[in-house]
Amino acid sequence: MGMKLLSVCGAVLLASTPLLAQETPALTSKQAKTVDRLIDKGLKDDRAYAILESLTTEIGPRLGGSKAEARARDWGVHTFESLGFKNVRIETFEMPFWERVTETASIAAPFPQELKITALGNSVATPDGGLTGDIVRFRTLLDLQDAPLEGLEGKIVFVDEVMTRTQDGSGYGWAVAKRSGAANEAAKRGAAAALIRSAGTSRTRTPHTGNMNYADNVTPVPIAALSNPDADLLGSALSLAKGPVSVTLDISVRTKTKVESGNVIGEIPGKTDEVILIGGHLDSWDLGTGAVDDGAGIAITAAAAKLIDELPGRPTRTIRVIMWGAEEVGLLGARAYAAAHAEELDRHVLASESDFGAGKVWRFRTRFGEDELPKAKVYQKALRRLGVGPGDNKANGGPDVIPLVQAGVPAFRLYQDGTDYFDLHHTMDDTLDKVDLESLRQNVAAWAATVYIASELEGEYR
Amino acid sequence: MGMKLLSVCGAVLLASTPLLAQETPALTSKQAKTVDRLIDKGLKDDRAYAILESLTTEIGPRLGGSKAEARARDWGVHTFESLGFKNVRIETFEMPFWERVTETASIAAPFPQELKITALGNSVATPDGGLTGDIVRFRTLLDLQDAPLEGLEGKIVFVDEVMTRTQDGSGYGWAVAKRSGAANEAAKRGAAAALIRSAGTSRTRTPHTGNMNYADNVTPVPIAALSNPDADLLGSALSLAKGPVSVTLDISVRTKTKVESGNVIGEIPGKTDEVILIGGHLDSWDLGTGAVDDGAGIAITAAAAKLIDELPGRPTRTIRVIMWGAEEVGLLGARAYAAAHAEELDRHVLASESDFGAGKVWRFRTRFGEDELPKAKVYQKALRRLGVGPGDNKANGGPDVIPLVQAGVPAFRLYQDGTDYFDLHHTMDDTLDKVDLESLRQNVAAWAATVYIASELEGEYR
Repeated sequence: MGMKLLSVCGAVLLASTPLLAQETPALTSKQAKTVDRLIDKGLKDDRAYAILESLTTEIGPRLGGSKAEARARDWGVHTFESLGFKNVRIETFEMPFWERVTETASIAAPFPQELKITALGNSVATPDGGLTGDIVRFRTLLDLQDAPLEGLEGKIVFVDEVMTRTQDGSGYGWAVAKRSGAANEAAKRGAAAALIRSAGTSRTRTPHTGNMNYADNVTPVPIAALSNPDADLLGSALSLAKGPVSVTLDISVRTKTKVESGNVIGEIPGKTDEVILIGGHLDSWDLGTGAVDDGAGIAITAAAAKLIDELPGRPTRTIRVIMWGAEEVGLLGARAYAAAHAEELDRHVLASESDFGAGKVWRFRTRFGEDELPKAKVYQKALRRLGVGPGDNKANGGPDVIPLVQAGVPAFRLYQDGTDYFDLHHTMDDTLDKVDLESLRQNVAAWAATVYIASELEGEYR
Repeated sequence: MGMKLLSVCGAVLLASTPLLAQETPALTSKQAKTVDRLIDKGLKDDRAYAILESLTTEIGPRLGGSKAEARARDWGVHTFESLGFKNVRIETFEMPFWERVTETASIAAPFPQELKITALGNSVATPDGGLTGDIVRFRTLLDLQDAPLEGLEGKIVFVDEVMTRTQDGSGYGWAVAKRSGAANEAAKRGAAAALIRSAGTSRTRTPHTGNMNYADNVTPVPIAALSNPDADLLGSALSLAKGPVSVTLDISVRTKTKVESGNVIGEIPGKTDEVILIGGHLDSWDLGTGAVDDGAGIAITAAAAKLIDELPGRPTRTIRVIMWGAEEVGLLGARAYAAAHAEELDRHVLASESDFGAGKVWRFRTRFGEDELPKAKVYQKALRRLGVGPGDNKANGGPDVIPLVQAGVPAFRLYQDGTDYFDLHHTMDDTLDKVDLESLRQNVAAWAATVYIASELEGEYR
């Protein structure tokens, strides 16, 4: 009996009929023992760290569409093949390309000194030789949005909004709006450029990049992020100066209309053609070596799948691991996959991506059909020993599975502790040394357990 | 009766004669109340922070001998005059000048990617276009020192010694030896260049600079520091590569044989011409804005002296506050002052410098004549409410007073908690936002109390 029928039968039956207890989804005792063994093995795993060290060292930064990302795809094929994964392949797609070339800024007057900035992805360049303008500061993006449409011509708009540190990453959700928002609101008002305080929590001079998009109805102006200490410095200059504070900004970029990228795919074939789809994204921003964003996701999911591959016999469902291409620059690999595989999405039983660093998993969230929610308890029970608590049913599954979720594929997410994530994410400090081995292992254990249950537990999630 | 005589009289007299208890050095009850009032005021001080914000914002980085350091001297004169200090002046001296122009590095093969480095002060440049060499790693400087004199020709020597985090800064004491040591040992062996892991504790990609000096008998080779994460990355590359790992290093510098620097001096004149000499150094490294090294020292000592100036009446002894020039590049201001004031050093009663950041003071150390050690207890008693404990009698007084101590001037040091100091020191992350206001105020309180006692307590320290 499927869970939908059970739910139609209703709570009275569930309470009064002992026979129906068997219909509550549960693992067999053999399966439960296997889950525990996978967790034990995950907690001693060295494979994820080795994969991550290899990717960050041998490839390093790998911007979507770059030659480094192409080298990373070859690395991905080699890695999957070394692990003994099957059906290893690259599914290519085309994309536009943007990269930074140079980026410098300084206070021009009255207190000349350097400012540490980074251009936002997709920003236009400044005119040759740079541009200089007086700073007009807005405490928040909302203040800028409410500002008159006149009075900012030729100025450099500075959105000084501070990001809030949160465990669940929600602080980023509202901070990130200023990335496109500041540029577009500045452009609407005839400003020469926009600066934002980094949409990150780091107290070091490591500005935080990330993609932005220009609205259709504006003439694009260059935009860059100041590190938090540099935003503080500019704030001090504004408060100590007796007159205007001017800044010189010099950004050059290179773009191409069409380059190749791709998703790297490897599988642990199951007894059926039903798919449990997991993975992380292969591209990174260009500033760091992409250890926490998102080498960790690739390492965790590949190592977890390998632990299942090492069990006796085949899994019931096929475990498909994807190293997604060009996530940072607009979920381009995700969209390409969803389009190319549209016809077989009904065979995608569950999907999830690990893309929130390498902090400990603390919450299991789902996006199951409401009638299938009792199945979540099976996962929650298995994960509890790892300190993972229950979450709601509103998971998006992770950036690269959003297009699949939108197409009706059920999803889950192993939510990681992100308290320190935005100290590193999208900065030059996203490097291997920041990854804690014990936390990485806890992730592998949680993923191995979860993917095994997803493969073996009977029934659907739609 | 001076303390020397008391000590000749001996312990028996001290124990048996109540009258002699009056000879134990102590503050009058009025003085003790003033000390407590100064501490209360120090703990609410806003002046030190304002001075520090002004220096780091309006001047910023100020390398010894640079134009920025000259602007800082003008700032110093203006600051002292605004505070109402007397006899404000600049005592100039000449010095050689070195500055970095460009510095880049990358792994050339087999895993090409950028490395974050900074040249050490005084390093020679690489040949035009840079140099490339295979890396030979030594775990410690001691290992390099013990290496054969042959076999490193044309190589890049990499000293990967890790600095230990300590509260009292002693970890730096032994880590810093590799700065000159690595270059000289590499040069002796015909290596092309030297790289060191930063002599700092930061886990961010902010390499740590600092001065080095070439031995007379070697042909100088360029030397730079890798940030800790980049040293880790190079270590990973060495462990994953099947053959040699080569690095390209490109450093250009500019030098001048003679430029002007100076010490900025301001005073709170006392009733006598005896001098209590305090201060911090005005120059900084060029990478950060010199907030903790050593804007804080200037801010703390100037604010503390000002609190004493605001007391009714003049202090007994003159409080001389010095913003030392060109400390980082070899204590050049300190040496110039000691030479120029050699004739009046006998009127220098006590000297000290604040040059270890803005962490809380936790220990009071002295360098008094052994017979004058009972006086230390007067200071220790006053400082105890601030959480400052007793220390030994081996204080050096701080870098810029070393030449004075060597000439016989007694000294003290208010030892700060340096646990995090080497995360910031000599890096681009030495910025105002790192300074904790409450800790800065505790420093001002401790200095105001100490300097007041030094001014008012009768007797000498030699």
